[in-house]
Amino acid sequence: MGGNRGAAAGHADRSEASRLAPVALRWDGRSLHVLDQTLLPAETHYIVCTRAGDVADCIRDMKVRGAPAIGAAAAYGMLLAALEAGRGHSADSRTSDLISKLSEAADRLVATRPTAVNLRWAVERLLSEAKGAAESGESVSGLLARVQAEADAIAREDIETNRRIGQHGALLLGDDVTVLTHCNTGSLATVGYGTALGVIRAAVEMGKRVRVFAGETRPFLQGSRLTVYELMSEGIDVTLVVDSAVASVMRQERIDAAIVGADRITANGDVANKIGTYSIACLARMHGVPFYVAAPTSTVDLSLTAPEDIPIEERSAEEVTHVAGKRVAPVGTKVYNPAFDVTPSCLVSAIITEHGVLRPPYPEALRALCQSQAGGAGRR
Amino acid sequence: MGGNRGAAAGHADRSEASRLAPVALRWDGRSLHVLDQTLLPAETHYIVCTRAGDVADCIRDMKVRGAPAIGAAAAYGMLLAALEAGRGHSADSRTSDLISKLSEAADRLVATRPTAVNLRWAVERLLSEAKGAAESGESVSGLLARVQAEADAIAREDIETNRRIGQHGALLLGDDVTVLTHCNTGSLATVGYGTALGVIRAAVEMGKRVRVFAGETRPFLQGSRLTVYELMSEGIDVTLVVDSAVASVMRQERIDAAIVGADRITANGDVANKIGTYSIACLARMHGVPFYVAAPTSTVDLSLTAPEDIPIEERSAEEVTHVAGKRVAPVGTKVYNPAFDVTPSCLVSAIITEHGVLRPPYPEALRALCQSQAGGAGRR
Repeated sequence: MGGNRGAAAGHADRSEASRLAPVALRWDGRSLHVLDQTLLPAETHYIVCTRAGDVADCIRDMKVRGAPAIGAAAAYGMLLAALEAGRGHSADSRTSDLISKLSEAADRLVATRPTAVNLRWAVERLLSEAKGAAESGESVSGLLARVQAEADAIAREDIETNRRIGQHGALLLGDDVTVLTHCNTGSLATVGYGTALGVIRAAVEMGKRVRVFAGETRPFLQGSRLTVYELMSEGIDVTLVVDSAVASVMRQERIDAAIVGADRITANGDVANKIGTYSIACLARMHGVPFYVAAPTSTVDLSLTAPEDIPIEERSAEEVTHVAGKRVAPVGTKVYNPAFDVTPSCLVSAIITEHGVLRPPYPEALRALCQSQAGGAGRR
Repeated sequence: MGGNRGAAAGHADRSEASRLAPVALRWDGRSLHVLDQTLLPAETHYIVCTRAGDVADCIRDMKVRGAPAIGAAAAYGMLLAALEAGRGHSADSRTSDLISKLSEAADRLVATRPTAVNLRWAVERLLSEAKGAAESGESVSGLLARVQAEADAIAREDIETNRRIGQHGALLLGDDVTVLTHCNTGSLATVGYGTALGVIRAAVEMGKRVRVFAGETRPFLQGSRLTVYELMSEGIDVTLVVDSAVASVMRQERIDAAIVGADRITANGDVANKIGTYSIACLARMHGVPFYVAAPTSTVDLSLTAPEDIPIEERSAEEVTHVAGKRVAPVGTKVYNPAFDVTPSCLVSAIITEHGVLRPPYPEALRALCQSQAGGAGRR
């Protein structure tokens, strides 16, 4: 995928990865088209972002969501900030002014959603690339080209990463299985293919028979609106349940594995993910169901060691008091609406990354994973 | 409360039990006014039922819900059937014809919702009273008077039963506690006062400080629409959460007890209740939170001994694919929508009845409870 070629982010893989569902992000060389996921499945509408602030708004308002998709969107947000700043410069302007503008954009983008670490990771990667270009004496146009290439690389790598996660994860599943998933971790949550849904997708591509139970994922209903939509688009057998029915479904021994994504993984293997994930992990443990987390290495944050260190975003009461735009709870209702929860590593059966499947003890496995990454030829 | 006096069912207690929230049922001497709970809290509208079929429709469509309220509504449905059949008879008609009509109405009412046993209990109690009257040679008008008295007794006893449940249950709570509840078990789910919410109400009346977390209870949102509404009406501190956030709230050690109602309790102490109850029971066990069930003795069904014997009602896919009348999942979505789940007795810390608090082993405790009832002066 190349932005200058006007290709869609993830578009190259669309025919395979997501035959009917639209892509979350599309870069046309000048602007980022963000699929408004709040309107799905009823309506397919793209918001055209021409400035970093437009992208920040889309992330904050959950027009685009899912840790990898947010990361890629933010990368293009940084590119938009760079292009905007570059327009005010002649060819021989000082790139340090441009870096300053990029730093401001980075702060704004990172502040939109505090829990997912891929957002920060992608923004820092772009900023680092720009700084590297400036320090090596690149011209403004040279710097812009490198920023563009880096944003494209993040998007391109995401699909490849997800395919590898899918390959590794699919091997954990039997030939005829029923899996439970939560929230949406598919092509809509990523640049393409998906993480936990990528595992399901890969298993189906391997010829395995996979039935999926999807929790509706209140309050934002990513399960009913997005996951069911994606899986139905591909002809994968999916049954929708309210989140509180998961325990019953497990008790009826109909679930072989639970597979979820992640927004941040601590050095100990504690996993922040969409609210309800911890509930599923507890129920999986009680019912003897393996609980798998599928996430790229960019989700790992070695700087945090305890579950309570992860910042948990609390969102507005209206997400719970109103459904589909209609008030359901009384005026003045007090709401606790954490967007995420943290599953302690002791409940995680395995973490599926693009480099393989990690098993406990996670501190050693995660450290080794990140060290091999840092020591490798590429950044990832 | 007497139907002939035109009093509201539960009205006498309304000033204490539910200061602002409307009552679920009101008998005006000729018709049953059923509060349409599907419109709450936005709108307070009563449906006037003049025939048993009207009541059956209200129960099936969940205009009235909550096992004790359904039982009382069905009792008045039987009364309406008796009055209608009686109108076609002269004073010296044969009461056997009337019994035949009542049996038909009973079948129709019992078929509306299969899980809650109070419905069957109330209908059978009315039918038994009518049969007793017929066998003892009562005239049609005498039989009608006895049926009316029995329906009124069920409604009156329900409030008294709930007050006693509240008294017993409140003693299980400390002086400053946070409790979790699910669905709606308050005055709206009963003739008045409530079961699990009755325990909370009684604790507050005893001067205890009680904070409540209420799960929204998808798909029907009884938590956000009804429980929050009732508790806010009475000034009781309540915080609304999505159902999947319960585990997180428990992990943060903010819950001293979980209290729920019941639709049917087997001879072994297994509890059928609103979908999501079993999930809460599992999570309570994992987090060391006591899990209490508050229910009248009429909920106990000694004829069943295994969790899987309880018939679990599955409701329409539309309850999950549509929210507040708006479609949220794709057309053709496959849904599994059980209205109830079953919590095995091993997860139940105590069952709070109007006759006291039962502790494991439940088979003995429940048998003794029901025997003492059968051998007592009154039917209950």
